[in-house]
Amino acid sequence: MSPINLAIVGVGKIARDQHLPSIASNPDFRLVAAASRHGGVEGIPHYTTIEAMLEAMPSIDAVSLCMPPQFRYDAARAAISANKHVFLEKPPGATLSEVVDLETLATSKGSSLFASWHSRYAAAVEAARSFLASVEIQSVHIVWKEDVRHWHPNQEWIWQAGGLGVFDPGINALSILTHILPSAAFLRSAKLEFPENRQAPIAADLHFTDAANINIRAEFDWRQTGEQTWDIKANTSGGEMALARGGSALSIDGAAIFVSSQEEYPALYRRFADLIAKGESDVDLAPLRHVADAFLLGERIVVEPFYDRA
Amino acid sequence: MSPINLAIVGVGKIARDQHLPSIASNPDFRLVAAASRHGGVEGIPHYTTIEAMLEAMPSIDAVSLCMPPQFRYDAARAAISANKHVFLEKPPGATLSEVVDLETLATSKGSSLFASWHSRYAAAVEAARSFLASVEIQSVHIVWKEDVRHWHPNQEWIWQAGGLGVFDPGINALSILTHILPSAAFLRSAKLEFPENRQAPIAADLHFTDAANINIRAEFDWRQTGEQTWDIKANTSGGEMALARGGSALSIDGAAIFVSSQEEYPALYRRFADLIAKGESDVDLAPLRHVADAFLLGERIVVEPFYDRA
Repeated sequence: MSPINLAIVGVGKIARDQHLPSIASNPDFRLVAAASRHGGVEGIPHYTTIEAMLEAMPSIDAVSLCMPPQFRYDAARAAISANKHVFLEKPPGATLSEVVDLETLATSKGSSLFASWHSRYAAAVEAARSFLASVEIQSVHIVWKEDVRHWHPNQEWIWQAGGLGVFDPGINALSILTHILPSAAFLRSAKLEFPENRQAPIAADLHFTDAANINIRAEFDWRQTGEQTWDIKANTSGGEMALARGGSALSIDGAAIFVSSQEEYPALYRRFADLIAKGESDVDLAPLRHVADAFLLGERIVVEPFYDRA
Repeated sequence: MSPINLAIVGVGKIARDQHLPSIASNPDFRLVAAASRHGGVEGIPHYTTIEAMLEAMPSIDAVSLCMPPQFRYDAARAAISANKHVFLEKPPGATLSEVVDLETLATSKGSSLFASWHSRYAAAVEAARSFLASVEIQSVHIVWKEDVRHWHPNQEWIWQAGGLGVFDPGINALSILTHILPSAAFLRSAKLEFPENRQAPIAADLHFTDAANINIRAEFDWRQTGEQTWDIKANTSGGEMALARGGSALSIDGAAIFVSSQEEYPALYRRFADLIAKGESDVDLAPLRHVADAFLLGERIVVEPFYDRA
């Protein structure tokens, strides 16, 4: 089969760090164009809008959308309307309803729509899922704490309304949680801390439960300097499970479990190629629904202002 | 067929104003018990918890849940687990995810779950829907402005996190909008005004669009004294449609259209009896999803404090 002609839209940090290397190493794809308001990709045609790109290059089969979520719907709709397959970076949209609309459109056009959750493809996630399916879970504790100044330097969009704030990394934890838990969880209470000069939270403390009434707590914080923490721990009938380093390391009662060396973004592109080959879509809204629930139900606490450079 | 033995849970203002008279006038139902922390219903057994009621009276077939949404999930789960049919007042829950969980449970137990949206049963709503299906829509403007001190006197829960604030009436407008529009709408931007001493908004300005890119604006305000406004207007190829008084009056280019004299809550109970007879559920999350989207995407503006008695 000839490679899928892929274009990338939104050539920012995540595109350069993750998407371009993963595409380059996957023979199922051939990168043929880029659209971005600022800067392109060396060696391929560059356009400033997706509309101009789709018009100029009808041979494009699929697009990867890597711009901020507030701008993703229009690009996705343009691409699907032109019968292209679409890879959405996480989160898949700025609202739940717009993603529901895209899914309906993709179904009617026969396009493959992939709402990607990269953390679900971390090396130890499937092993954690298998473990939790084999035991009784007593409680779950997520700690996702990182330094926003290091990971999102001067990314203004992330602090604007719809930018999600600390839920931008936190949704990665929720995408793992919703994949590895045997039953569905839902939020019972939440506290969100908003810097007084920002429209998005810098920290969140979430209390979930599930049908079996287990306690699931998630702590997200963007003010963590020094060691960075992306851990999910579970007390179970089979011992304490620790899924650490963003899903890449697993231990039970302190003993490390050997897992694959799988890298997330190459696995995402293998999945996208597979969806296209099968004529299927993969759109799981559960992680974004939990975030919307947190904004809906959460108590808002105003905290000291945040400035990008201290 | 013998009547459905119905119990009511949460005997507050909405139960007394609407549910009890509608149940009394419907021969498909027999009210057999009430559960409420404060006060019961004259002439029938009263319990302080739903669990005690379900334990004491196994003959109950169905329950209507009228307590604040923050407390609805546990009661609904208890009832469905005991094989009862469940009528949920609007909104159906404090989060989207918990309603998804209830729907899954109801399906597995064979219970009918009815997430009710009373405004959809206002007298002129179906006529408005038929009209909009026959024309091209250019724009829609919702104005939903009322005096919270009159309609929700001293209802503290409505101002707490998860209480929805002005979206408690506003979701009625959204439940009509999502029913009468031929295509799905989604939010593009929103401004929410939060009194500085409250966890829920007192006003909201919402800008939606749909796949056809029409402009849909919704203004919700709880500070309206004097005349109260619950109107949905649409500019269309067939003239200006005005669906006024909360969905009960319809006019096209100023000419009133005769519509039914249907009352909302009696129609809801006819629908609930029909669902039970057919073994079906009716759970449409679209109105609550739009509210969650508004909290997720909306810009927050802090306004002057609100006190229940000025």
